[in-house]
Amino acid sequence: MKQIILLRHGQSQWNLENRFTGWTDVELSDQGRTEARDAGRAILRAGLKPQFFFTSYLRRAIHTLQIAAAEMQLDYIPVIKDWHLNERHYGALQGLNKAETAKKFGDEQVHIWRRSYDVQPPALTPDDPRYPGKDPRYSHLSADQLPLTESLADTIERVRCCWEEIIMPRLEVLDTILISAHGNSLRALVMMLRHFTPQEVVSYEIPTGKPLLLTTDDNLRYLSTTEL
Amino acid sequence: MKQIILLRHGQSQWNLENRFTGWTDVELSDQGRTEARDAGRAILRAGLKPQFFFTSYLRRAIHTLQIAAAEMQLDYIPVIKDWHLNERHYGALQGLNKAETAKKFGDEQVHIWRRSYDVQPPALTPDDPRYPGKDPRYSHLSADQLPLTESLADTIERVRCCWEEIIMPRLEVLDTILISAHGNSLRALVMMLRHFTPQEVVSYEIPTGKPLLLTTDDNLRYLSTTEL
Repeated sequence: MKQIILLRHGQSQWNLENRFTGWTDVELSDQGRTEARDAGRAILRAGLKPQFFFTSYLRRAIHTLQIAAAEMQLDYIPVIKDWHLNERHYGALQGLNKAETAKKFGDEQVHIWRRSYDVQPPALTPDDPRYPGKDPRYSHLSADQLPLTESLADTIERVRCCWEEIIMPRLEVLDTILISAHGNSLRALVMMLRHFTPQEVVSYEIPTGKPLLLTTDDNLRYLSTTEL
Repeated sequence: MKQIILLRHGQSQWNLENRFTGWTDVELSDQGRTEARDAGRAILRAGLKPQFFFTSYLRRAIHTLQIAAAEMQLDYIPVIKDWHLNERHYGALQGLNKAETAKKFGDEQVHIWRRSYDVQPPALTPDDPRYPGKDPRYSHLSADQLPLTESLADTIERVRCCWEEIIMPRLEVLDTILISAHGNSLRALVMMLRHFTPQEVVSYEIPTGKPLLLTTDDNLRYLSTTEL
């Protein structure tokens, strides 16, 4: 049996400020740090012992992992940080206040951007300071790898690269892994593991700060989900 | 030119309590965490930007790295954690108070254990709870890899494995790396880079919490040392 623990980061500064975050590299809030500690304790209490960690390039997920790992006294476990596990890129909405955006574009339009499977929010232009190509951490990526905006379907396609090329090979030799990431990149993993339809994945919510244990058989056929 | 930043962790709980630490996995003290933040700022101020991190299996070095990386906003940089970078193993002295040990064995004997090149402190026995073979993090190692005690020369030999097999290959493609580790494992790296004699290495002190920048040419021939 394989055990895959999914950990969605807790509250960030921009959750507090009700802004679209996406790839913006905001910090955890104090509450977010407390949620990360509680998550580590919940994994310990469940008797689980991850043998490998995966996380995104964004510090709210990286710090959630570090805090949870310290709580489990598993700081020494190897970690891979992969941009493919980043949150969905929210295009030109990134940084905007959600309530103001709803006033400007209408509740329905914002609902479509947030809750549809394949609709992209307005794109950034490459001269926008928010364009990931301006951030040195993505300088090894080509222009066609760098998103200007993403639908949930786009996010799922890039998470698939990480799942198939980085995570699955480790699950051939390891039994228990932990992935600390974001609402939409974790949804992508659940969709792949559980063979969700687009309709199922858009209505599926990953709890924040509460680790989710997915078990599979040795061939990665899905067995069960437990909230820890 | 290559830039190798060596960072010795700051004060730990057992430094505070004046105890032999070695492979014991003690936490940083509050002062140690402040030193790590200051170290991150010093690296930033020097305009250095590490492209790869290395650290040991011990949390005082791992946390020093995490705190310094957060200060530099370089949390996303890849990290390799390698037990070869652990502190020197102090054998049966681990956990003992340094002053009490000096009273029991004499100042001169303790000085020899601490400051000689190839004298080992008294060894642990494999049934000692402090034996690394009892710690799951070392379960992938064979009995002859697991130290019962170490002289500085022993530590240098195992750090050499990490230097030659893990760090040097990365320095073929990268220019700037940061290694967060311990007094004796960092001394080992300095000895290899600067071709120190045993006499030179025992009298060389790595400052705690102050990053040390070693530069080399592209063939890793030593050029200079700067305290940041």
